[in-house]
Amino acid sequence: MRYFIHFAYNGTNYHGWQIQPNAVSVQSTLTTAMETILRCSIALTGAGRTDTGVHAKKMIAHFDLETSIADSKQLVSQLNNLLPNDISIYSIEEVAPDAHARFDAISRTYKYYITRSKNPFLHEFSEKITYPLDLDKMNEAAFTLFDYIDFTSFSKLHTDAKTNNCKIKQALWEQKGDFLIFTIQADRFLRNMVRAIVGTLIEVGRGKMTVDEFRQIIEKKDRCAAGSSAPAQGLFLFDVEYSRK
Amino acid sequence: MRYFIHFAYNGTNYHGWQIQPNAVSVQSTLTTAMETILRCSIALTGAGRTDTGVHAKKMIAHFDLETSIADSKQLVSQLNNLLPNDISIYSIEEVAPDAHARFDAISRTYKYYITRSKNPFLHEFSEKITYPLDLDKMNEAAFTLFDYIDFTSFSKLHTDAKTNNCKIKQALWEQKGDFLIFTIQADRFLRNMVRAIVGTLIEVGRGKMTVDEFRQIIEKKDRCAAGSSAPAQGLFLFDVEYSRK
Repeated sequence: MRYFIHFAYNGTNYHGWQIQPNAVSVQSTLTTAMETILRCSIALTGAGRTDTGVHAKKMIAHFDLETSIADSKQLVSQLNNLLPNDISIYSIEEVAPDAHARFDAISRTYKYYITRSKNPFLHEFSEKITYPLDLDKMNEAAFTLFDYIDFTSFSKLHTDAKTNNCKIKQALWEQKGDFLIFTIQADRFLRNMVRAIVGTLIEVGRGKMTVDEFRQIIEKKDRCAAGSSAPAQGLFLFDVEYSRK
Repeated sequence: MRYFIHFAYNGTNYHGWQIQPNAVSVQSTLTTAMETILRCSIALTGAGRTDTGVHAKKMIAHFDLETSIADSKQLVSQLNNLLPNDISIYSIEEVAPDAHARFDAISRTYKYYITRSKNPFLHEFSEKITYPLDLDKMNEAAFTLFDYIDFTSFSKLHTDAKTNNCKIKQALWEQKGDFLIFTIQADRFLRNMVRAIVGTLIEVGRGKMTVDEFRQIIEKKDRCAAGSSAPAQGLFLFDVEYSRK
């Protein structure tokens, strides 16, 4: 039996999603909790990765079990009781045996939060930028993303990705109260891509780069051309979309 | 010259507002930062106290200076840069020499946040209660607060308060999305009062106490009669109101 597990996490205290030696990851913490309750070995395949300190409002992974889950609501409740405060399970549902959390996802949505003043409650969940930012210019530059598919310039170097092509479906800055929120949706994202795009768009917003220069960076296909990456704590994996359920 | 300073804090890492030996308080942290920048001794008088772990969305204190502040916006900015992430200054304004942050306040407003499911982002700012709660019954009980002025039953024992009388101006539970929010406003509050009221109203909401029994608790004027105090992390000092500015 194959299952999809839907969950959220506060990434502050984790070295990202992916299991790795000598570091606490969300995947290792969740796997341990599931193995404790289900009393069998669990292999989680996530819809994607998030880096150290990045949060997930909605993340999905799949896993297989030899026996079926009798009461998934009870299992969710047991997991939530066992897991630390910063990981929360929404639901666990049976899916087709060949359903795949990563390959079946048709798109991912990320949101990046900038706060325009010091907020003592949300400093773990946003980047504070108090200097002036030209939101119209940032959106003008963001809209150029739709004209391209190769985003090598915004990718981490030396990854094992076969191509650096992504289809951008949404890219928009919005002001909501004291926050600037960037929403970006694509079929896939390269490693570090959202933070590199946000960091470079901020350069445009503060007047250190023109929209044309932003476009040239994409065309150069050279990571060194782009601006620095925006800090992890402002970034949320917001949703993962599937065509079938 | 007398000044009012308006600020907010995340109370998670503080032993409350009040300066005390061998513990880090908001007052001591703020005083140290102000003395560092202003290079003189500062005595802050707060509008009230908050206990360990309680937050303040808006708190006010007054202090005196021999010289006037040339640029209060710059001072606010310097303080925000020097202070840790969990304390934020909104403004500093000159007031009448006899204005008093505590005695001139005509009321205080607190809010208490209950979340109905596990929230990995807000566990420091709310109490999680997943069992059923009857909001109508909780409001019915809350409305009985308007019939009384002596709240000895909801006060910490052995305080130095002269009277236990308070005028309740607002007391209302509201559901907003996944949250239950209790707003209570009064001319003054006794120590531990809001958390004792909330804890006892939760007993009503879960059916362990009737509205009549809640009323009897107030009439007994005995702290031991009330329910346990709700946890600090759900409580926010939300505002302090003044008749003159």
